[in-house]
Amino acid sequence: MSIPLDPDDSVVVLAHEKFPDRAKTAVGVLRYADYDVTAVLDRNRAGETVGDHVPDVRDAPIVESMDAALDVTDPDALLIGISPIGGGFDESWRPDVRAAIEAGCDVIAGLHFFLEDDEEFAALAAEGDVDLIDVRRPPADLTVSGGRARDVDAEVVLTVGTDCSTGKMTTTLELLTAARERGVDAGFVPTGQTGIMIAGWGIPVDRTVADFAAGAVERMILEAAEDHDVLFVEGQGTIIHPAYSGVTCSLLHGSMPDALVMTHSVGREAIHGYEDYAIPPVETYVDLYEGLAAPVAPTNVAAGALDTRTLDDEAAREAVAAYADTLDAPATDPVRFGADEILDALL
Amino acid sequence: MSIPLDPDDSVVVLAHEKFPDRAKTAVGVLRYADYDVTAVLDRNRAGETVGDHVPDVRDAPIVESMDAALDVTDPDALLIGISPIGGGFDESWRPDVRAAIEAGCDVIAGLHFFLEDDEEFAALAAEGDVDLIDVRRPPADLTVSGGRARDVDAEVVLTVGTDCSTGKMTTTLELLTAARERGVDAGFVPTGQTGIMIAGWGIPVDRTVADFAAGAVERMILEAAEDHDVLFVEGQGTIIHPAYSGVTCSLLHGSMPDALVMTHSVGREAIHGYEDYAIPPVETYVDLYEGLAAPVAPTNVAAGALDTRTLDDEAAREAVAAYADTLDAPATDPVRFGADEILDALL
Repeated sequence: MSIPLDPDDSVVVLAHEKFPDRAKTAVGVLRYADYDVTAVLDRNRAGETVGDHVPDVRDAPIVESMDAALDVTDPDALLIGISPIGGGFDESWRPDVRAAIEAGCDVIAGLHFFLEDDEEFAALAAEGDVDLIDVRRPPADLTVSGGRARDVDAEVVLTVGTDCSTGKMTTTLELLTAARERGVDAGFVPTGQTGIMIAGWGIPVDRTVADFAAGAVERMILEAAEDHDVLFVEGQGTIIHPAYSGVTCSLLHGSMPDALVMTHSVGREAIHGYEDYAIPPVETYVDLYEGLAAPVAPTNVAAGALDTRTLDDEAAREAVAAYADTLDAPATDPVRFGADEILDALL
Repeated sequence: MSIPLDPDDSVVVLAHEKFPDRAKTAVGVLRYADYDVTAVLDRNRAGETVGDHVPDVRDAPIVESMDAALDVTDPDALLIGISPIGGGFDESWRPDVRAAIEAGCDVIAGLHFFLEDDEEFAALAAEGDVDLIDVRRPPADLTVSGGRARDVDAEVVLTVGTDCSTGKMTTTLELLTAARERGVDAGFVPTGQTGIMIAGWGIPVDRTVADFAAGAVERMILEAAEDHDVLFVEGQGTIIHPAYSGVTCSLLHGSMPDALVMTHSVGREAIHGYEDYAIPPVETYVDLYEGLAAPVAPTNVAAGALDTRTLDDEAAREAVAAYADTLDAPATDPVRFGADEILDALL
């Protein structure tokens, strides 16, 4: 999967009725993508601006529709920045997608529903010579892992976690930025739809055939290791997730990392959406990840990243210190305090 | 996936140039399926019989082609009982499949290549009103696991192992037979193509979307638990497999078993096909499987099954005793010595 966007391209991001708190992809792209976001579509917030809600990113107007966006910007693409439960296409978005294609914009989506399979969009896109880019469609030529990732020259760092949505992608991208600021030749290996949209390439590991999931990760590692000295690999799920642990396990054995960074959300006590499944002590996770890796490609938890957004600064500092104690490794909240303490432990 | 075969139906099994040693599916079906195998196709062994090679199963002629089989039997289906590396369709089989469809037989295959996608076969099958059954095609409506398997009333037993091809399916089916002989209402949950062909239903877990693998297992457990007191679940791969561990992990967390049976092949020292990956001591596997299950649905290795086919009887007895010592649990070779010792530990 490769997305035809350059750093000097610009996109409009669709986030109707969900910006910013339930628009994880939109906010991820605003914060981390190289290309510019020149408008956000949210019909509930038309007239406001991105800066009203997300500080520290380039500001942009929020408008009610693609037509309205085209009045104020000349984008290269429309990017779907939200995902309803189930990953379907919301029919209320159809006029926006239609307007984008008719204006010559590519459309980029990470839904389970594929834009390319929609007859109207496919016909319009063919007519207008624009691309419909479904980042969640895995390549057709995936195969089983050859067990080769442990032999690459690059240093491979994988983020793991105690649950889904504990900041694995965010931590990975903060580490990437901090490493590059130090002059390290670092690369990002994206494994989910938001990461792929940000990076412009990648394979959605959760959507591959189960037998090929580790092979998909391996393929990305071998490719990216040709170009970089250090690779930061976006983790997924958790090794004790009732539904997604297989994907997590495939990431661990497919990437064969030299070091792990353990992410956790402060105060989280049960698996998100599976409230009968308690989150065990973080030491249990350390033992499981390291134990499972050992016979395949030994690694260790070298640092921790704690999401402290629900705490004030002082409580956050205390929580980070306690987390570091428990892990017996350096830890921080990389969004709040920067990624340097983690990076020092890794490089 | 459901296969339209009843116990009084009969099938012809295709195993060209590979019967019996490289025809795992053919031999599995001969040994364990309820329906009758009335001929085997192997052009290298035409004129011999099944009984010349596989004792203890109902004898049948080996013939050179489907045409020759139709001279001596009136089957309901042709079943592809071998799988080339890569799971492709060998064009030398085309005349046999064509002859089967023209004779009104269904055709059952577990290849990565789907018969239904072959234009000639699809057209012939439509014309003749026969079914092309690709058991490796997962259902289209799979979804994520709800974490519900631990709540079923049935006792769930999962076979796990130290590698692929350590006897997980065989052990599962020997346990099923032995339990039924004791009058236990036991069911079989098939998770791979051979198991599905034997049972006539099931989902090929390795071929599902990675995010849905545990959900596919859960769906089968919930369904089968309605009908049985004990479920024997066919395991796949191993939790430290460089390529397939994600599938194994999804099976563990999707089935949430009450007990595990650890399978191993005596003398195996490295992962099959991944010779640089040593097989660690079996205690390591016990710790990993039990540790990984504990936070989700606690379980333990209650017994062991050792494949001793390379040893003589005395050496086999010694190997089984040593294996039981190491596991600190009862163990046997269920094919050689029967499954009773394992069953005693489980029920």
